[in-house]
Amino acid sequence: MSTQKTVTAACCQVAPRIGELEYNRALVERVVRQAAQRGARVVVLPELVQSGYLFRDRVEAQALAETPDGPSLRLWISLAAELDIVLVAGFCEQRDDGTLANSAALVDAGGLRALYRKAHLWDGEKAIFSPGDAAPPVVDTAFGRIAVMICYDLEFPEWVRLPALAGAELLCAPVNWPRGPRPAGERPAEVVRVQANAAVNRMTIAACDRHGHERGVDWVEGSVLVDADGYPLAGPAGEGGEQLLLASLDLGAARDKRISGHNDVQGDRRPELYAGVLAVQGRALG
Amino acid sequence: MSTQKTVTAACCQVAPRIGELEYNRALVERVVRQAAQRGARVVVLPELVQSGYLFRDRVEAQALAETPDGPSLRLWISLAAELDIVLVAGFCEQRDDGTLANSAALVDAGGLRALYRKAHLWDGEKAIFSPGDAAPPVVDTAFGRIAVMICYDLEFPEWVRLPALAGAELLCAPVNWPRGPRPAGERPAEVVRVQANAAVNRMTIAACDRHGHERGVDWVEGSVLVDADGYPLAGPAGEGGEQLLLASLDLGAARDKRISGHNDVQGDRRPELYAGVLAVQGRALG
Repeated sequence: MSTQKTVTAACCQVAPRIGELEYNRALVERVVRQAAQRGARVVVLPELVQSGYLFRDRVEAQALAETPDGPSLRLWISLAAELDIVLVAGFCEQRDDGTLANSAALVDAGGLRALYRKAHLWDGEKAIFSPGDAAPPVVDTAFGRIAVMICYDLEFPEWVRLPALAGAELLCAPVNWPRGPRPAGERPAEVVRVQANAAVNRMTIAACDRHGHERGVDWVEGSVLVDADGYPLAGPAGEGGEQLLLASLDLGAARDKRISGHNDVQGDRRPELYAGVLAVQGRALG
Repeated sequence: MSTQKTVTAACCQVAPRIGELEYNRALVERVVRQAAQRGARVVVLPELVQSGYLFRDRVEAQALAETPDGPSLRLWISLAAELDIVLVAGFCEQRDDGTLANSAALVDAGGLRALYRKAHLWDGEKAIFSPGDAAPPVVDTAFGRIAVMICYDLEFPEWVRLPALAGAELLCAPVNWPRGPRPAGERPAEVVRVQANAAVNRMTIAACDRHGHERGVDWVEGSVLVDADGYPLAGPAGEGGEQLLLASLDLGAARDKRISGHNDVQGDRRPELYAGVLAVQGRALG
């Protein structure tokens, strides 16, 4: 039985400017207030919305990095407290050991609830960031049990499975999806993967992309909120520039893993047969 | 570098009749000859095309079951030899121990190359079949390295990962997708999941659905051949009744797992972090 419990979530598809930290803070404040005013209780922003994405090199990234008690996260925490929302957004994190991480924070009225460091790094990120080693956090909030991961992480179904098995009802994913070629009339593969991730786990997903040409790169602009059946409730935005997408997500449906009289997407798993997924490029570990 | 190696594959979306084994054999022979005549070297047929799908009970299934040396597989093997093709099709298998399996055979000019028994059973199948315990086979054929699984198996990305890690270039999946509700304008979630499975593994997939009303059930009729980027090359058929879908699949692209200057869909996996996928409904196996 799907117990009724819904939450209004928002994806704010904005265009941060590389290196303009104050501009980006003001941008986030503007759209987060707008989302809350329109009823959102969970607000998702893009990957690296604090700094922009295409750093020239590690030196530039280092200069723009912040700690969790830096001005950007302080602002986000104060907004979450004032508006009584959950806010999930990406930032360039200065870690204590001197490394940088491509991170996302989940903040709410209680402050910083979780930090997540991207575990699967995309392309040039490998020269700048150290990958995270911790599974996606799953946080009990006033508005649902919410998990966080970032962009390319979504292309590893094993990774998405972890928070789903831990009971996440909603996965919030800040992303920056670089635009590439695709067949005419086809929905972007990035969005298709989000839909499949939702369906096989019966977990709602809010993936927030960005827009705005940055150092030669354009974006899919594919922000989307997907239900537990894998169908979009809002978006994909489709190259619409700045977009505020809102949807009412049925978290009760996400807790109910049954899909027929005799099937349950978690109960039907046969993990005793899956050990091979721990193989490295076809070779068993150990 | 994608080395050029293509194969023409076909999905024969036909309507087997429940219990009419001779009719179904003649149906398979007709469409397989047609597919080969149009250039297909790998031909995929639906799940349980030998028998039909909606058995009233185990007794009826038992009466229709065949062993791998029964008349249906003998026909399929002789067709594969005569036409020099790989043929993948589903049948109701009588096993030596008295149990039944929802199975698929891969046959080629060399005879029966692999039997696969569906590991994840759908709904009423649980009252009739014993689930298989063996990973999807991966067979080196004259037309590529080909894996086999069946229908609901595709909803477990861990399961799809196994043949991909074993080097499969093409996954052939006989399916019977019962038609359910979906939002207007949306591609069926079954097809979306096939696309995502292809993209995250860079493995081509040919999923062959059926048509024809059977004992109260209609079908998605969503047969589709998908490239290594996750985009359809032929289909989804879309309730078109009998359909012969053909596509030239680039198996070289499927061997090349690179998706950027610094990314590889297999090399970027971090299996040392994935042990949690062996958990049973959130509890670690122990």
